Amino acid sequence: MKLHLINGPNLNLLGKREPSIYGSQDFETYFQTLKTKYPQTSLTYFQSNSEGKLIDYLHEIGFSSDGIVFNGGAYTHTSIALGDAIRAIHTPVIEVHLSNVYAREDFRKVNYIAPACLGSICGLGIHAYELAVLHHLSLK
Amino acid sequence: MKLHLINGPNLNLLGKREPSIYGSQDFETYFQTLKTKYPQTSLTYFQSNSEGKLIDYLHEIGFSSDGIVFNGGAYTHTSIALGDAIRAIHTPVIEVHLSNVYAREDFRKVNYIAPACLGSICGLGIHAYELAVLHHLSLK
Amino acid sequence: MKLHLINGPNLNLLGKREPSIYGSQDFETYFQTLKTKYPQTSLTYFQSNSEGKLIDYLHEIGFSSDGIVFNGGAYTHTSIALGDAIRAIHTPVIEVHLSNVYAREDFRKVNYIAPACLGSICGLGIHAYELAVLHHLSLK
Amino acid sequence: MKLHLINGPNLNLLGKREPSIYGSQDFETYFQTLKTKYPQTSLTYFQSNSEGKLIDYLHEIGFSSDGIVFNGGAYTHTSIALGDAIRAIHTPVIEVHLSNVYAREDFRKVNYIAPACLGSICGLGIHAYELAVLHHLSLK
Amino acid sequence: MKLHLINGPNLNLLGKREPSIYGSQDFETYFQTLKTKYPQTSLTYFQSNSEGKLIDYLHEIGFSSDGIVFNGGAYTHTSIALGDAIRAIHTPVIEVHLSNVYAREDFRKVNYIAPACLGSICGLGIHAYELAVLHHLSLK
Amino acid sequence: MKLHLINGPNLNLLGKREPSIYGSQDFETYFQTLKTKYPQTSLTYFQSNSEGKLIDYLHEIGFSSDGIVFNGGAYTHTSIALGDAIRAIHTPVIEVHLSNVYAREDFRKVNYIAPACLGSICGLGIHAYELAVLHHLSLK
Amino acid sequence: MKLHLINGPNLNLLGKREPSIYGSQDFETYFQTLKTKYPQTSLTYFQSNSEGKLIDYLHEIGFSSDGIVFNGGAYTHTSIALGDAIRAIHTPVIEVHLSNVYAREDFRKVNYIAPACLGSICGLGIHAYELAVLHHLSLK
Amino acid sequence: MKLHLINGPNLNLLGKREPSIYGSQDFETYFQTLKTKYPQTSLTYFQSNSEGKLIDYLHEIGFSSDGIVFNGGAYTHTSIALGDAIRAIHTPVIEVHLSNVYAREDFRKVNYIAPACLGSICGLGIHAYELAVLHHLSLK
Amino acid sequence: MKLHLINGPNLNLLGKREPSIYGSQDFETYFQTLKTKYPQTSLTYFQSNSEGKLIDYLHEIGFSSDGIVFNGGAYTHTSIALGDAIRAIHTPVIEVHLSNVYAREDFRKVNYIAPACLGSICGLGIHAYELAVLHHLSLK
Amino acid sequence: MKLHLINGPNLNLLGKREPSIYGSQDFETYFQTLKTKYPQTSLTYFQSNSEGKLIDYLHEIGFSSDGIVFNGGAYTHTSIALGDAIRAIHTPVIEVHLSNVYAREDFRKVNYIAPACLGSICGLGIHAYELAVLHHLSLK
Amino acid sequence: MKLHLINGPNLNLLGKREPSIYGSQDFETYFQTLKTKYPQTSLTYFQSNSEGKLIDYLHEIGFSSDGIVFNGGAYTHTSIALGDAIRAIHTPVIEVHLSNVYAREDFRKVNYIAPACLGSICGLGIHAYELAVLHHLSLK
Amino acid sequence: MKLHLINGPNLNLLGKREPSIYGSQDFETYFQTLKTKYPQTSLTYFQSNSEGKLIDYLHEIGFSSDGIVFNGGAYTHTSIALGDAIRAIHTPVIEVHLSNVYAREDFRKVNYIAPACLGSICGLGIHAYELAVLHHLSLK
Repeated sequence: MKLHLINGPNLNLLGKREPSIYGSQDFETYFQTLKTKYPQTSLTYFQSNSEGKLIDYLHEIGFSSDGIVFNGGAYTHTSIALGDAIRAIHTPVIEVHLSNVYAREDFRKVNYIAPACLGSICGLGIHAYELAVLHHLSLK
Repeated sequence: MKLHLINGPNLNLLGKREPSIYGSQDFETYFQTLKTKYPQTSLTYFQSNSEGKLIDYLHEIGFSSDGIVFNGGAYTHTSIALGDAIRAIHTPVIEVHLSNVYAREDFRKVNYIAPACLGSICGLGIHAYELAVLHHLSLK
Repeated sequence: MKLHLINGPNLNLLGKREPSIYGSQDFETYFQTLKTKYPQTSLTYFQSNSEGKLIDYLHEIGFSSDGIVFNGGAYTHTSIALGDAIRAIHTPVIEVHLSNVYAREDFRKVNYIAPACLGSICGLGIHAYELAVLHHLSLK
Repeated sequence: MKLHLINGPNLNLLGKREPSIYGSQDFETYFQTLKTKYPQTSLTYFQSNSEGKLIDYLHEIGFSSDGIVFNGGAYTHTSIALGDAIRAIHTPVIEVHLSNVYAREDFRKVNYIAPACLGSICGLGIHAYELAVLHHLSLK
Repeated sequence: MKLHLINGPNLNLLGKREPSIYGSQDFETYFQTLKTKYPQTSLTYFQSNSEGKLIDYLHEIGFSSDGIVFNGGAYTHTSIALGDAIRAIHTPVIEVHLSNVYAREDFRKVNYIAPACLGSICGLGIHAYELAVLHHLSLK
Repeated sequence: MKLHLINGPNLNLLGKREPSIYGSQDFETYFQTLKTKYPQTSLTYFQSNSEGKLIDYLHEIGFSSDGIVFNGGAYTHTSIALGDAIRAIHTPVIEVHLSNVYAREDFRKVNYIAPACLGSICGLGIHAYELAVLHHLSLK
Repeated sequence: MKLHLINGPNLNLLGKREPSIYGSQDFETYFQTLKTKYPQTSLTYFQSNSEGKLIDYLHEIGFSSDGIVFNGGAYTHTSIALGDAIRAIHTPVIEVHLSNVYAREDFRKVNYIAPACLGSICGLGIHAYELAVLHHLSLK
Repeated sequence: MKLHLINGPNLNLLGKREPSIYGSQDFETYFQTLKTKYPQTSLTYFQSNSEGKLIDYLHEIGFSSDGIVFNGGAYTHTSIALGDAIRAIHTPVIEVHLSNVYAREDFRKVNYIAPACLGSICGLGIHAYELAVLHHLSLK
Repeated sequence: MKLHLINGPNLNLLGKREPSIYGSQDFETYFQTLKTKYPQTSLTYFQSNSEGKLIDYLHEIGFSSDGIVFNGGAYTHTSIALGDAIRAIHTPVIEVHLSNVYAREDFRKVNYIAPACLGSICGLGIHAYELAVLHHLSLK
Repeated sequence: MKLHLINGPNLNLLGKREPSIYGSQDFETYFQTLKTKYPQTSLTYFQSNSEGKLIDYLHEIGFSSDGIVFNGGAYTHTSIALGDAIRAIHTPVIEVHLSNVYAREDFRKVNYIAPACLGSICGLGIHAYELAVLHHLSLK
Repeated sequence: MKLHLINGPNLNLLGKREPSIYGSQDFETYFQTLKTKYPQTSLTYFQSNSEGKLIDYLHEIGFSSDGIVFNGGAYTHTSIALGDAIRAIHTPVIEVHLSNVYAREDFRKVNYIAPACLGSICGLGIHAYELAVLHHLSLK
Repeated sequence: MKLHLINGPNLNLLGKREPSIYGSQDFETYFQTLKTKYPQTSLTYFQSNSEGKLIDYLHEIGFSSDGIVFNGGAYTHTSIALGDAIRAIHTPVIEVHLSNVYAREDFRKVNYIAPACLGSICGLGIHAYELAVLHHLSLK
């Protein structure tokens, strides 16, 4: 099974950026642990701060990947184009957020990504990526 | 580890109620499977259609349980009292929804429960309860 | 034909409560008259001030009753759970209100029950229950 | 007793227009059946697609008629002038709608007619006219 | 000087309709008094309950009249087309209302006519027509 | 192919009314030019300032015409009844506006006509009618 | 008859301030002309830029004056206290505005003064004071 | 004089729940002190987490009690039914809140209870119950 | 203990102004009674219709007074500056209103004063001042 | 005449993406047909999923092109920057949309591109590009 | 060059009031430093807690001053009259705020002063006055 | 001291784009003058039309720069991601705008950048960059 993990803007700073909200673990290290834990699964990771490049990447993998785990970062709340890209591809997508977006600013309650996804996980920190992977595996 | 699964209004009809939205599996059967799969964990299940009884139950277990998985059903969108009950107790709570609430009616986007919880999982069907259990176990 | 009439919160005070808005007739007396007038029809009456008990009752009768006449009282404007309960059962439901909700406070214009029902009658006083019964009979 | 049934815009197409929403019965045929069923009652029918003509007609009959059954069609949601016309006359008016307006587009939830009427019936199809007639008769 | 007084919907019922709000004087009688008081001025009166006929009349006189006094009645709050008609013609228009629209329902605070007029007078009863005539005369 | 061009309120003043917004060409002249340019096509023109008459006309031609080009003028922003009339008929309708409604007052952004049409053209002046005709011809 | 004309903030600059909106006539000169024209009437003029002083003055004269003409300037849109002061006194008040407030910024459509007054005149320039005086005289 | 103190949801946890907001005193102890301090007054205390039971209790005592002190907890912001129950009974009710609801989340500014009460006290901690008792005593 | 009672705009007319809303007692008389009743407490009274003077006075006493009872009148709903003044000083402030502001116009539900105060009392008439004094005394 | 056709995000998937909404024709093929049909006109095509690159391209061609046909895709509803880019250049732009945006989700009714353009065409499918080209040609 | 610095309500408490938001420097001391630093420039300082006096002062200096630096304090968010006063005078005004109003309560995002000014500086503490002075000097 | 000036979308057209709003000076020329004027300060300039590249650049310099002056152009009103990027880095940022955003379209009043910055300067034209530089220098 081929799964893709995609992170949006500012998530390249994970571990470095506002640790009280986003935790102090850096994503690359976490990703290596995850790959080791699920050796049967092909896991690929992509990050970009550009909305356009995230759309390009979704188009590129979205007709052959078996499952996408997508953290749109702040684009979650502003990008109808990313929501449309997810609707346009064939691979099922699970949205994840590190923090509990329900407990933050009002503008983080607008969500253009989730309605186009299978479902959404938030507030469970970096563990959410693994839970989403587990859900994709359960759909096999 | 003692975990409690709590379901709110109309979830007693699971498997029988609008299967295209909520799936066709009945919760009791699922719960037995879950207990079998996690024999080390003490799992308890409670359901009520009454907001008051859900609050009573949260008060009762919320100072000794190790983790709560809570599906507030439609009270999610209207009950500030349930949100306050979760804030009043000590046990961490993970909110789950069977359907993707982001892709449904606008009034289901109001959420008074999630801001009081650790996090929230929606749209992943009945599997969400197990993912929430796994997250509680990971916090040990 | 088995029909059920259900009244929500404060309707037990009918005849006693704000007669200028809700009329001075008490519901039990009216219900006896109605039973006498429609001897062929099995008419049952239930009232509760509790949202949870109203949901329980709808679940209990909602798979075998031939028709429900439901006055949700003030829960009409706040209870998504009651709307969901009506969507979850099989019996058709007609909503009634004694007063003309369109001519009252703005918060009485929000209605979570009616969209889940066949239709709605308001402003015609206690006579609305009989009109709703007549409509259920016409569907036979 | 002299009763008047009045239909607003597009209701002349009844039976022909979007039958899944408005039913397939044409109003003229229904009206003849109604007259036959209530031979003691003088029933008159008027339809216009023009807001101004509906106001003119309400003025004309609204000081001598014993009861009006009014389906304002889409003017329900936009015409303050029709609401004012009903307030200006002496005959009691019952509003009817064929479809359940609560279960349709948001703009159909605005209602300028109902607050000026005795009450309102919706979602019970063409039968609503007879229920409204029955209510007028009950007021004698 | 040729002036035109135009009344919109339901104003034909003046003196008869809700006298506590609109006064008990009938417009025709008032208009005769006004003509007698201003014999030098050509005063013409037109009333219609139809938005379309009001637009037609504004088009007809709006390139030759010296001043229009316009009471749009309830169309004031809903008719962008009447506002556009006033913008389309050359004659200056003064809006009048019998009642104090600021002290009534919220929906009467929306006004599509006044922004297209020279100015507006409300709450001064039937006297407002004469004040508007005086203002047109003062512009000579 | 039989096509019908319909203009709503104030468009009879075209060429005369606010030329900086609506252009200085009169519609009748333009319509003759269009007829000459498309001799194979039966083109009919109708204009009314009355919402009711526009609905009547749509009903009259809307089951036999091959295509309608409709400029609802200001009724576009207020008439749910016209939108319903278009939904009620069988002929496809293309909405046109002379001015760019997106660049004008906020109340011109509300549109009850367009959702019932095939599509909409605005801001391209009187040429829009020909483009709409071309589109109808392309559907043959 | 004793009448009082009261002007609120910035109206002391009349004739000097944005003449394209407020006209170029200075209020003192106009007031002298008005006194000359109505020698039978006792006319008094007061202006202040202070909300508190305007309230003090309304209290002072509002139990003995026969009529007040009040231009609240920008306080019209923000001062609930001035509206309360007018409700608290016994003298009838007519609100005037020099400019057509309906044709200006949205925040000038909020009006806390007018609902407490007899009526309101706007858009007729400095002539409005005389029209309001005439109306007070007509009430004698 | 018979007075009743009623507490709504989560107030059974007083002293235990978020002490920084609600204080650290438990209600039962406070209530005993209050009874001791006002030996002439019959004071009764009732608490429930259930909206329905609170309505039942208000109906039960609301025709014979001399005064009610009611803290609706979170139901204050969501329960139209409780507001209606207070309107339906005869005993005057004073609303109290421990915390200053004006200084908290926006959803706590909606209040369906207070408009049905005599008045409201908030932000003065547990002392508010005594102040409300004093006010009821002052009405004797 | 030094306490200060401060009244805002229009409260100088108490007893004279709309007695059905504000009661018929004049404040000065009430204040003398209060002083007599609490001889141990230094009570000072200040009233102004000017927002600026109320701010000046709060600054003047707000670093030495032991407690302030403040009725902001209509400034409650419009004055952010008074709220800021209360936040800027050191003396605790209790807000009072004579009428039940929750049961009045919507614009009286906006409150810029209360969030800066300890708490708020409304709807209990002139007695509220004494209750607030009692609360200040209880804090000693 | 040099014309430029520009497509925004996800339009590279045309023919492949949700064909029920966007049609099944791929844009490149259509573009070749268009070039063949208008051999006198220089037609250039550009597509990008990146807001920044679309802005760069508009800057690059927007001072020398004779006309732009722009489909902003989902950026239409979120990009003020693209609207500013169109305002910043000299070439006239016509906006096109394949689907009828008026008949879709509410968030697609916000439009930041159209107010900066000459006009807009929607709902007429891929034919809209040719209609826009025709309009640019008509402006020569 | 004659420049005027004007401070609105509560700014007389600077250094004393909520130092975490407004800093601990007192304005008089700062102003002396500023005068010393710009000996060529005539700098005058005025403060008032009264909206009316601030308007009076703006009128007094606003036709002869060369530049005004204005901190409206909380009146910024509520005073249309101060905005009008700035529009009424001839001297250019630069608005300053000590704190970053964008990062505070929502009601501080409403701004009636800034649209009438040349520009606005916020969040840079007391240094903003000097930056505004520098800008006025740069305009010479 | 190392300072960075960053310009967002369309600001590369400065001097060329709508000079009545943005001025006629080109940014590169201005930047050279600024460097000459502050030879002690290391000034670097970056511009991009791409939200992603602006985020990348902020990440790149935001842990070593001593101060950033950031004009987000239209992204100011739509980019939560840029606001998050500023919150994620360590360098203090001052926002600048050439035009007075308070005096423009309503959608330019939404600001996601400023709350993450130290402060903001608008309406003072290109001079704002220098004022922001001066403020950074004053913080040394």
